[in-house]
Amino acid sequence: MKDRTAIAGIGQTPFAKSLPETELELALAAIRAALEDAGIGAWEVDGFASFTMEPNVEVEIARNLGCGDVTFWSQVGYGGGAACATIGHAAMAVATGRASVVVAWRARKRGAATSRPWANVPDRVAGPAQWSRPFGLLRPVDEIAMLTRRYMHEYGATRAHANRSPRAMMFAKPLDRDTYMAGRWISEPLCIYDNCLESDGAVAAVIVSADRARDCPQPPALIHAAAQGMNAQLQTMTNYHSTDPLTGPGWACATALWRDADVGPRDVQVAQLYDAFSPLVLLSLEAYGFCKRGDAPGFTDNGALGPGGRLPVNTSGAGMSEAYVHGFNLVAEGVRQIRGTSTSQVDGAEVSLVTSGEGVPTSALLLTADR
Amino acid sequence: MKDRTAIAGIGQTPFAKSLPETELELALAAIRAALEDAGIGAWEVDGFASFTMEPNVEVEIARNLGCGDVTFWSQVGYGGGAACATIGHAAMAVATGRASVVVAWRARKRGAATSRPWANVPDRVAGPAQWSRPFGLLRPVDEIAMLTRRYMHEYGATRAHANRSPRAMMFAKPLDRDTYMAGRWISEPLCIYDNCLESDGAVAAVIVSADRARDCPQPPALIHAAAQGMNAQLQTMTNYHSTDPLTGPGWACATALWRDADVGPRDVQVAQLYDAFSPLVLLSLEAYGFCKRGDAPGFTDNGALGPGGRLPVNTSGAGMSEAYVHGFNLVAEGVRQIRGTSTSQVDGAEVSLVTSGEGVPTSALLLTADR
Repeated sequence: MKDRTAIAGIGQTPFAKSLPETELELALAAIRAALEDAGIGAWEVDGFASFTMEPNVEVEIARNLGCGDVTFWSQVGYGGGAACATIGHAAMAVATGRASVVVAWRARKRGAATSRPWANVPDRVAGPAQWSRPFGLLRPVDEIAMLTRRYMHEYGATRAHANRSPRAMMFAKPLDRDTYMAGRWISEPLCIYDNCLESDGAVAAVIVSADRARDCPQPPALIHAAAQGMNAQLQTMTNYHSTDPLTGPGWACATALWRDADVGPRDVQVAQLYDAFSPLVLLSLEAYGFCKRGDAPGFTDNGALGPGGRLPVNTSGAGMSEAYVHGFNLVAEGVRQIRGTSTSQVDGAEVSLVTSGEGVPTSALLLTADR
Repeated sequence: MKDRTAIAGIGQTPFAKSLPETELELALAAIRAALEDAGIGAWEVDGFASFTMEPNVEVEIARNLGCGDVTFWSQVGYGGGAACATIGHAAMAVATGRASVVVAWRARKRGAATSRPWANVPDRVAGPAQWSRPFGLLRPVDEIAMLTRRYMHEYGATRAHANRSPRAMMFAKPLDRDTYMAGRWISEPLCIYDNCLESDGAVAAVIVSADRARDCPQPPALIHAAAQGMNAQLQTMTNYHSTDPLTGPGWACATALWRDADVGPRDVQVAQLYDAFSPLVLLSLEAYGFCKRGDAPGFTDNGALGPGGRLPVNTSGAGMSEAYVHGFNLVAEGVRQIRGTSTSQVDGAEVSLVTSGEGVPTSALLLTADR
C-alpha cells in the first residue's frame, strides 16, 4: 500500500464552543470544503470512512452530498483512537479498487454539552467498567490520571503553536507555566490545562490514488503508511493490571506502522500526537520510538516540541488548544505540514506523523511529500 | 484482490429461540469453532471485522480469546446489509498486509426479546424516519411490505432446504403452500411466513491469504470478489420517492461485484440470498442479474430455487428457516457449498454467491473453489 494513495483534499468548519449548525450540516460543510480543496465533485465520491461514534451515517451524507453509487464504507470504534484508522481504511479501499474517491470525516458537537456520557451512571455497571467505575474512575480523565500517577513526573505546558493559528480556539489566549500551575484540579495530577477542549466542529479529508492526487490542485500528502494497533490483553483505558500499564496500544500500532515504512522515527520532522489529555503526548513520544521508555519528559526539554524545536508537535494547537474533533483535526494539520501551509510550518517537512488516542485501541498515519 | 484471500474456517453455535449464554460467550464459541476449523490458534488472530450493531467490541473479543497484538478492525453499518462486507473488509486487510488472520463474526440474541427497537416510538421522530414513522411504517417489515405492494405479484414459499439441515431451527417443520396461505398477516401483503426467525446464535469466519488457506485442513473458499453498494439518493428502507423504488442498493452492489469478477450470474451454481423478508430474495435475483427486472416470480417456477433446481437458493434454510443471525449464517453456508459439505449440496459447486440485506446499504460475496 506504500505511497499508492494520498490525501488530496482537507476541509473543516470553524471550531467554537458552540456552533448553530447541526452535526449533519457541519459534516457536509467540512466534506464540501475538502472536495473543493481537492478539486473533485461530490458525484465522484464512492467511499466513506468514519468513527462508530460519528452521529451522521454514510447514507445520509451520500444523499445530502449528491453522490452516485457508493461502493465502500467502514467505521472504526474507540473514539479518539479512530481518526488515523479511517484514513487507513480509505487508503486500503482505494489501493484495492473498492472505491476511487473516499471521504473520511468526523463531525462533533460537544462544546455546549450539558451532560457527558459518563455522567449517567446506571444502577448496575456491566462489562469491564464494573472493575473501575464503582471505585471512582467515572471519566476518561480519571483513567488517564491513574496512568499519569504511575508515570509520576513533572512536565511543562505550552500554547506556542496554537497562538500562531487563527483557526485555534485558544489562538488569542497564551498559556504560561504560572497559569498552568494555578489551574484547578480535574483529576489529580491532571489540572484543567491537561484536558482537551470541548468543541463544536467538523473536519474531512479526501483520499484518492497517488496518481490522481498528482492531478489535483494541492500537493499530495502521500499515505506512506497507516496502521492500527491494540496490544495483547488490553482492557480499554483501564489496563492497570498488566505488567506495564504504560505500554499501551500505541506500542502495537507503532510496530505495525514502522514495519511497513521506509522511514523511521529519526526521519519524522513534525508530529501531531493525540492529546485528549496531556500525558498521552509523552506516552506517544515513547511508543512511536522518539525516545526510550520513561525518557519523554527529558525529550521535551528546551522547547523540543515547540516552534523551531527538534520535533515540533501539535503545530495547530491540536486537541488542547485548537479544538477537540476527536483527533481528526490532527490529520488535517499533518497534511498542511506536507503542503507547507501550517501556521507553525516546519521548513521543508517531508515526513509528517499523525497519531490517534493512546489508552484505547489506536491508529497512526505517516504522510510523506511527493518528491 | 481477486482470489488472493480465502475463508479458511467457519464456526457457529447452535441456533435456538433462546440460548442461556451471553452474547460474548456465543461470539467466543463461534470464533473458537471457526479457528479450530481453520487449524489456526487464537494467538495468531490479528484482525477483526463485524457489524456496528454487534454487541461485543473487538477489544473484549481479543482479550477473552487470547490474541496477541491486533492490527486491523472495522465495523459495517446497516444491520443485515453488513454480513458480506465484513468478509470484504477482512479480505482487504489481508490482501494489503494490514493483518494476516482476520476473524469476522456476528453474535445475536433476539429470540427471546420482549421488545423491539421500533416498539419504542419517541415523542419526536428525527432524521429520515420522520417521513415514514408517523404514517405507520414502524417496523422493517412494514417498509418491505410497501415495496412488495409495489411489486404486486404472487409467489410460493418452501422449506425444502431447511428440512434437510439438522442445524436449522425449522428442520422438523415442513411448510406447504396451504400452511403458508393460512399464515396470519404481519404487514399486508406479508404474512408470518414471509418473515425471518428471531433467534439466538453466533457465526464466525476466519479469513487468511489464499496461500495460507491451502495449508489449512479445509478446502479454501477463495474470495473471488467482495463488494459493497448503496445506490444514489438512497433513503434507507423507505426509498419510495425515487423513480424506481424496486431498484435498490443491491443493484449498485451487483455492478461493483461483477465488475471485479471473472464470472457472471450464469456461472453461479448456488446462491445464499438475504431473506429477512421473502420478497428480498426476488429483488436480489433481479439485482444480481439472474433474471430481468420483474421476471423473478417466473424465474422461481418449477422449484428453480429448491433442491435440484436450476439455482438452489438458501440451501441451509437461511434467515427464514435456519436462523436469523443478521445474514451471517448465509456466509457459512456459502463456504459449505464450496467445500461440498452442505446438507443441500449442489454437486460440484465451484461458484457460490452470498448476498446481504436489500433495501439497506448492502454487500455481496463471490466464493470460488480452488481448482
